[in-house]
Amino acid sequence: MTIERKSLRWNGWGLADQENMLPDAAPQWDRMREALGMSHLPDTKAKPFETITIAPCRLSDNIIARLSAIVGGAQVKTDNYERAFHARGKSYHDLLYLRAGKLDLAPDAVVYPRDISEVIEVINLASEEDITLIPYGGGSSVVGGVNATAKSIGGNVVTLDTTLMTRVIQIDKIAMTATIEAGIYGPALEEALQKHGVTLAHYPQSFEFSTLGGWIAARGAGQQSNRYGKAEKWLVSAKVATPRGIWMTEATPASAAGPNLNQILAGSEGTLGVICEATVRIHDLPDRKDYRGYLFKNFSSGVEAARHIIHADIPVAMVRLSDAEETRFFQAFSSTNSPTGFKARLRRAYLRFHGFGDEPCLMLIGHEGDTDTVTWAQSQTENICTSHGAMKLGTSAGERWYETRFNSPYARDPMMDHGIGIDTLETSTRWSNINALREKTVAAIEKAIAENKPEANSRAIVMTHVSHIYPDGASLYFTFVFPRQLDREVEQWQAIKRAASDILLENKGTISHHHGVGLDHAPWLAEEKGAIGFELLKAINADMDPKGVMNPGKLLG
Amino acid sequence: MTIERKSLRWNGWGLADQENMLPDAAPQWDRMREALGMSHLPDTKAKPFETITIAPCRLSDNIIARLSAIVGGAQVKTDNYERAFHARGKSYHDLLYLRAGKLDLAPDAVVYPRDISEVIEVINLASEEDITLIPYGGGSSVVGGVNATAKSIGGNVVTLDTTLMTRVIQIDKIAMTATIEAGIYGPALEEALQKHGVTLAHYPQSFEFSTLGGWIAARGAGQQSNRYGKAEKWLVSAKVATPRGIWMTEATPASAAGPNLNQILAGSEGTLGVICEATVRIHDLPDRKDYRGYLFKNFSSGVEAARHIIHADIPVAMVRLSDAEETRFFQAFSSTNSPTGFKARLRRAYLRFHGFGDEPCLMLIGHEGDTDTVTWAQSQTENICTSHGAMKLGTSAGERWYETRFNSPYARDPMMDHGIGIDTLETSTRWSNINALREKTVAAIEKAIAENKPEANSRAIVMTHVSHIYPDGASLYFTFVFPRQLDREVEQWQAIKRAASDILLENKGTISHHHGVGLDHAPWLAEEKGAIGFELLKAINADMDPKGVMNPGKLLG
Repeated sequence: MTIERKSLRWNGWGLADQENMLPDAAPQWDRMREALGMSHLPDTKAKPFETITIAPCRLSDNIIARLSAIVGGAQVKTDNYERAFHARGKSYHDLLYLRAGKLDLAPDAVVYPRDISEVIEVINLASEEDITLIPYGGGSSVVGGVNATAKSIGGNVVTLDTTLMTRVIQIDKIAMTATIEAGIYGPALEEALQKHGVTLAHYPQSFEFSTLGGWIAARGAGQQSNRYGKAEKWLVSAKVATPRGIWMTEATPASAAGPNLNQILAGSEGTLGVICEATVRIHDLPDRKDYRGYLFKNFSSGVEAARHIIHADIPVAMVRLSDAEETRFFQAFSSTNSPTGFKARLRRAYLRFHGFGDEPCLMLIGHEGDTDTVTWAQSQTENICTSHGAMKLGTSAGERWYETRFNSPYARDPMMDHGIGIDTLETSTRWSNINALREKTVAAIEKAIAENKPEANSRAIVMTHVSHIYPDGASLYFTFVFPRQLDREVEQWQAIKRAASDILLENKGTISHHHGVGLDHAPWLAEEKGAIGFELLKAINADMDPKGVMNPGKLLG
Repeated sequence: MTIERKSLRWNGWGLADQENMLPDAAPQWDRMREALGMSHLPDTKAKPFETITIAPCRLSDNIIARLSAIVGGAQVKTDNYERAFHARGKSYHDLLYLRAGKLDLAPDAVVYPRDISEVIEVINLASEEDITLIPYGGGSSVVGGVNATAKSIGGNVVTLDTTLMTRVIQIDKIAMTATIEAGIYGPALEEALQKHGVTLAHYPQSFEFSTLGGWIAARGAGQQSNRYGKAEKWLVSAKVATPRGIWMTEATPASAAGPNLNQILAGSEGTLGVICEATVRIHDLPDRKDYRGYLFKNFSSGVEAARHIIHADIPVAMVRLSDAEETRFFQAFSSTNSPTGFKARLRRAYLRFHGFGDEPCLMLIGHEGDTDTVTWAQSQTENICTSHGAMKLGTSAGERWYETRFNSPYARDPMMDHGIGIDTLETSTRWSNINALREKTVAAIEKAIAENKPEANSRAIVMTHVSHIYPDGASLYFTFVFPRQLDREVEQWQAIKRAASDILLENKGTISHHHGVGLDHAPWLAEEKGAIGFELLKAINADMDPKGVMNPGKLLG
């Protein structure tokens, strides 16, 4: 069972009827206006659905009839709400269009197959009739990965929604793998596993509204990827509907029988086929979770501690280090405490007395697993942190983060209602390059926002955290908040995106650590992969999808 | 600097002048003869090099001159020793031909380029002139990965020996990566790293005579892969000379920028190009190594313990579990103690008294790293072992294994001198299938040897160990010793190989865990990958090597 589309926001995050986490009377608004140097907060509410025009479905009756013969008439949707819902993903860029009621990209129809044989038939029909097919799970892409772009101007587009395919096929508690249909949403997946005492524990920020297949297609990462792995690591095997037929990837624990094609599937973003079923590594539910905070004197000492933790081979679930700006921002805006109030001043005085200056950086460390391992590992990481000059904040900071870990996306809609833009981007690079890449990227984003601002005094807030650590480096996750240029919103966003992406690639970062490529990063992929690698990706695509009907324009441009 | 070819055995393992570890007077021979049910041990020494005829080099003077212009005349070798040395790899199957003096497969010439630009020029010449090019590092392939097979009957073959490319380009002790030319042998690589206090710690049994590039090309595994990773895991990035030019693979710690092409390179076995340089993950030299032994009452309780160790997230470098046959074999043959003598009888009586019956299985567990981690992890694994009924054997068994860990291949030449065959093969499968797959494979090998035996009473010794463990399963490594059918040696080997390979694929094992595919496993690859995956591999190959000059016949058949 999928989540009923009418119960979800078609042009924003979450449920249609959810509570606003930042109501107009919230104390944060005035502080945010001030921090962004805005003279006022304009009223920029989204256009109501009822007032929006959407181009009619252009599919012939014959095609509709043939689609209906495959999936059943009730599973072929051509109504305006379904088509608007599936028009785009959930990026800031997408929302600029959706909130303005610009629905030129809506698919002609949405189909909901119930098993892989129906998916194969839909793909065959699309190939025969040269109809573009867009695989769609939760639709939470923030890089234009599910946008209803046709392969040629005026071409027909059908979106294939996978979310009726949710069966749990096998749970193997000896091999600790589960085989599950890939249209299942995060919460349903975890519920199905946890009632057997096991977990995949892939918790991206989009967890509530994203699917297993999407996580694999986009090479996603959960917040606890240090223990549970990024998608390409927990993926054991998949069953994929392709224009060539059903593709079962390799399923052995490790092999020297040629290249591993699971690693070609992970990150293929629907361009090779539709991931219908996946076998994934699962874990016993952890006996213990321990999340706690440390305050570092500056970002680079936190980076050093993180690096020592991973190189010491200590099992961690999560190491997350905010820079000073992000540490300050969450202190200021995620509580009702005033940043200029008595308590905040007292706290700053205390920190200064202990040599922390104005740049303290928060690190959150999470351990999960059996009690012995967590106890031992926690004491080891704590030793490393304190030996790098960190102050122990105890478990309350960690627990607070844990409770609110899916909240950030909910803040975007109300911010966009008030003339404020917010977007994120992420990369990874080698440890030796982390500090320099952070500084250069923050500067590039700040400069692009300064060059594209609506008022003389308006300014950006740009903050960073290290979100995932690896032996050779780490990811950097950038969040930027800015006053929107209401008369040129898309251009403003494009200028920021271009500046950030250029600087990442010039400085040995990847264009994306876990969001994917989609349409938005496609212009940078050829540079990242190099000419030979990029041609190889095109050859792979041409082999699997010779007519180019699968999600064209995404990934390879 | 490479190892001078004349100082190495061209038709066996190790140095030309090394001591024979099993001289004719060794006490093991009579025991081995008896165990194999042989009436006598025939004298089956290899044909001396001087008595062997080798077909002349067929390259035109023009081609030789052009190759010399690229790499220098001294680096183009057409003498008989170099051509014989590079004719084949080091499998039992290869040795049957080499020892019999059958050199129909020898390359027409061997070239030794000194950098990637020379490699590119050699590849371009080969593509232009349709000359088959065989990339060759240590030449230790045991699957026919470097055999000098031409792409078409009568075609010219040039072997490209990478072992003059050995420079260490960068050691990054912050990112803990090293960039090194890929023709470097294991010992030279470790010497270069260890003088900076770091290690790759990739120690396959072939370590002394295999190269960095070969490890990647074949998706090899070191004995301590649980800590240091299989080649596809420690590979960060590579610089590859291909028919399309120089291919630099991705180099970021983790990425969602499309599929990761390093995972296409690893296991490509020279069919896409020549790996000239690799960036690999390195580690600080461990403060402590702890190797010790445990005796389990049977194989399946050892398997259960190994599975619990990996699922408990305890850092281990190595977990190696021998079955009862292998445990018995090493007890009987690797020392001078008689298996029927007083000490052995006393030991058996002691074990029986403690409920061990006749099936005790030896597990060796290795921990490496900083002292704290090793101490903690060792106590954790010991608890798991004893709770699964194991008897502690202490560190002496572990240390003894560690000291002799590269020895096994040296025993093959003297065994082949006495009419005895020995070969190995390996696979991996899910935990839930480990016991069944081991039993079926042992039975299939025993049956094939029984059906292909030289004497009525002769029989095989077939033994197994788990050599590498993963969350979802483990590898199984089979060693089989058998009396050779001297009148049909190749057919005998083929019958065993076919029986074992068929049974592995029928029962959800991979055709190889770390040896690779080469010529020997190629007939099974299409089945393992499935039609769609196999076609995809062919498309990748056709894109990178359109004329099919790179190591044809290997991997894809």
